[in-house]
Amino acid sequence: MFEQLGLIGCGLMGGSFALALKRAGLVKRVVGYSKSPSTTAQARQLGVIDIEAPSALLAVAGADIVLLAVPVAATEATFKSIKHLITPNTLVMDVGSTKRDVVDAARRALREQVGSFVPAHPITGKEVSGVEHAVADLYTGKHVILTPIERTQPEQVRRATEVWSALQCHVMTMTPESHDAAFAAVSHLPHLIAFAMMHSMLTQPQGEEYLKLAGPGFRDFTRIAASDPRMWRDVLLANKEEVLAQSQAFRRTLQAMEHMIENQNGDALEGLITQASDARTDWRMVSFKPQK
Amino acid sequence: MFEQLGLIGCGLMGGSFALALKRAGLVKRVVGYSKSPSTTAQARQLGVIDIEAPSALLAVAGADIVLLAVPVAATEATFKSIKHLITPNTLVMDVGSTKRDVVDAARRALREQVGSFVPAHPITGKEVSGVEHAVADLYTGKHVILTPIERTQPEQVRRATEVWSALQCHVMTMTPESHDAAFAAVSHLPHLIAFAMMHSMLTQPQGEEYLKLAGPGFRDFTRIAASDPRMWRDVLLANKEEVLAQSQAFRRTLQAMEHMIENQNGDALEGLITQASDARTDWRMVSFKPQK
Repeated sequence: MFEQLGLIGCGLMGGSFALALKRAGLVKRVVGYSKSPSTTAQARQLGVIDIEAPSALLAVAGADIVLLAVPVAATEATFKSIKHLITPNTLVMDVGSTKRDVVDAARRALREQVGSFVPAHPITGKEVSGVEHAVADLYTGKHVILTPIERTQPEQVRRATEVWSALQCHVMTMTPESHDAAFAAVSHLPHLIAFAMMHSMLTQPQGEEYLKLAGPGFRDFTRIAASDPRMWRDVLLANKEEVLAQSQAFRRTLQAMEHMIENQNGDALEGLITQASDARTDWRMVSFKPQK
Repeated sequence: MFEQLGLIGCGLMGGSFALALKRAGLVKRVVGYSKSPSTTAQARQLGVIDIEAPSALLAVAGADIVLLAVPVAATEATFKSIKHLITPNTLVMDVGSTKRDVVDAARRALREQVGSFVPAHPITGKEVSGVEHAVADLYTGKHVILTPIERTQPEQVRRATEVWSALQCHVMTMTPESHDAAFAAVSHLPHLIAFAMMHSMLTQPQGEEYLKLAGPGFRDFTRIAASDPRMWRDVLLANKEEVLAQSQAFRRTLQAMEHMIENQNGDALEGLITQASDARTDWRMVSFKPQK
């Protein structure tokens, strides 16, 4: 049981964490701060937070658990602004989709307090953002990946695992490097592609007419293209090397397929599609059934 | 009311058409032929067809409505094999995802009987194939695009429109060229990309590990990668020019995004993603509510 959650960033992710922690009876009060005062006010009106803080530092004052739910690009500045109130007993976590940059920022900004920080990435997707979409069960049944570094206190990793488990999440641990390589492949590249495809369509003279004919395949394929632009700008920039490596590997495969089409090489094309189709047919999302 | 449907190709599309026509009370008997005798037998056992024909020609004998539901690459040979039994009163349709190649094949193979052929593309997506998945409502509420040419008999276009309307479809008419350009953009390119992305993942040493971490975004994005390989090989080859043009336009956009990431050009990246995201948020699949 925690006394106070210091919530920095009262959007979809942060707000949902606060609601989940409250519902699980894990926290007495939530003090929240958002860069935009109207967001903080809205979070209080919606009952997501109990008290509005005028700064990140004041949200952390008195907190024994702190969640950073800010765009990854704002991580370092946020750490700097709260560093003085973090003790070895404060559990500090984030929810960022990239981890190497967050860990680097934490090393630079938190220095001797970096051991209190347990980098976390809850795998949950929504194409909407904002505190008005925050729900207590956003994380229920989801995977959460923790990427502790050598300086992270084992005790804090244990507490972080307990918190997410209490929210009915399945907790895994990876290095920040493995995390970023894997998510470049399974998440960042698909988003990049979906944005590029939507944009390529828009720039065609008849793009709007074409869109009217699009069906269910297109709908599902492009769903992630509706995701939050600023967040994804930050993710793609933060995980630059891995994203570029994945994008280039993908483009090579696409070009190889174009050559097969160009040369009417039906056998090679069918062979490649068959491998892709079989792999997708066999794939099952690893789902975690929370215990009742 | 038709006396006999001659069904050539008793798979998902053909089988579902037969079931729909029967349910609507539009046909007295269905005579079916599939290249594989076991498929034809299965179609009869499932009640999808009433009589098994040992050849395409014999399925057409006595038929006043004929549906070709074969891979687009098999269209021309099929037309040639049934040409002698097609009269000006026979309504002949297909269900192919590409139309220019089908129309060209019909011109070459049907010659003076080409006026009986109304090229049709029902917009319906399923990642499964085979007669065992055929259902009477596959086409209900879907769009069907007819692409008649100058030689198509207007009376047959009228009858085709009536048939699909009776199956509660929304019928549109386009030229074969416009059809193929539009579907290269909204359907063929997304499939090509999904196949390429799945394959690019598979060829990575850690691809299998990565796949275990993939979540709902990946699931929806790659759903179409599970589609039938042979059918999609044929579609991509049949619509070669338009598919290549779309793929190249897409690759140019993707490379432009890679450059923005490479150069940390956050403003340009965010601008492009915002346009894509707004367009996808605003997009609604044009849905057709059939009348009760």
